[in-house]
Amino acid sequence: MGRWEPNARGRLAQAALTLYAVQGFEQTTAAEIARAAGLTERTFFRHFADKREVLFYGSDSLQDLIVGVIADAPATATAMDAVNRALQAVAAMVQENPEPARLRNKIMSANPELREREFVKLADIAAAMSVALRDRGVPEPAASLLGETGVAIYRIAFARWIGEPGQPDLAAILRECTAELKSALGDRLLSPA
Amino acid sequence: MGRWEPNARGRLAQAALTLYAVQGFEQTTAAEIARAAGLTERTFFRHFADKREVLFYGSDSLQDLIVGVIADAPATATAMDAVNRALQAVAAMVQENPEPARLRNKIMSANPELREREFVKLADIAAAMSVALRDRGVPEPAASLLGETGVAIYRIAFARWIGEPGQPDLAAILRECTAELKSALGDRLLSPA
Repeated sequence: MGRWEPNARGRLAQAALTLYAVQGFEQTTAAEIARAAGLTERTFFRHFADKREVLFYGSDSLQDLIVGVIADAPATATAMDAVNRALQAVAAMVQENPEPARLRNKIMSANPELREREFVKLADIAAAMSVALRDRGVPEPAASLLGETGVAIYRIAFARWIGEPGQPDLAAILRECTAELKSALGDRLLSPA
Repeated sequence: MGRWEPNARGRLAQAALTLYAVQGFEQTTAAEIARAAGLTERTFFRHFADKREVLFYGSDSLQDLIVGVIADAPATATAMDAVNRALQAVAAMVQENPEPARLRNKIMSANPELREREFVKLADIAAAMSVALRDRGVPEPAASLLGETGVAIYRIAFARWIGEPGQPDLAAILRECTAELKSALGDRLLSPA
């Protein structure tokens, strides 16, 4: 096998998801993942620093998607509209092919040590969202607050979506969570009447 | 020296902060920290799992403070009032003795690998805040959203406070950030007029 392996990264990520979900994260070696993808262990480590990193294969393109949507939002949009458009674009991507997200969530839930890396990636996405908002003229601290809040809304909506049976609508849950937060920041009493 | 060391945890945490800030996190050993606190390395590891954990010495009592304030908020308070009271209590504690927070921030900024542990602790605090709100009758997803949002507001306010020269008022910056977020979730345009 030569040095040119078409879509090696994607094949490795897919094989890793499957093996981690089936036999466990701890029990799976980089060599096994590479073998399952028809590649060598050496190729694995050319593409990923370690076994954790392969689970975040999609996070760069996710970040690009979010930043692109905010950059392309119309001038008449509010800052929160732009954030909502970005979240809806992520939801559309996830719902088009939900299986990787479900597998990933199963693996992350079973391995608390993966949470740490997940938090760092989410913080990077929040920071990228804030930069994209600043580039569109949103001043600080609003840009940073909206970036963090956008990620928080997404995380909570995703957790609800993944926990619901049937075919729940992630886009609708996101809209509902955004509305709930607006109401909660306002006049929602501690004990609802 | 016997097994009884008065306030060993606090002395170790203080010594660690000083040594990490002066000579660097990587360059400091647990044995050095223990020696600076007049204790043994064995005592260090009886109190802290590793060199990172000692930096989060205060996070349990911080969490207790937040949960207690939410539990004690008057029945007439809104859910966000309760969150604000908790954030103001943290601000009062930090401002009463800002030096540990400043040292800690300096150490965390210089060591990206400490960020991961920080994110996990902050997520735990957000979760505890959400539970405290649920216990006061706030339904989901509002309770989770407010917990995450409260932590996000605190993080951004803290970053502004620590970056400002002079004696900025953390409580006032927190109030300002909360107001900014409310406005940003509403009708703030992308490019301010």
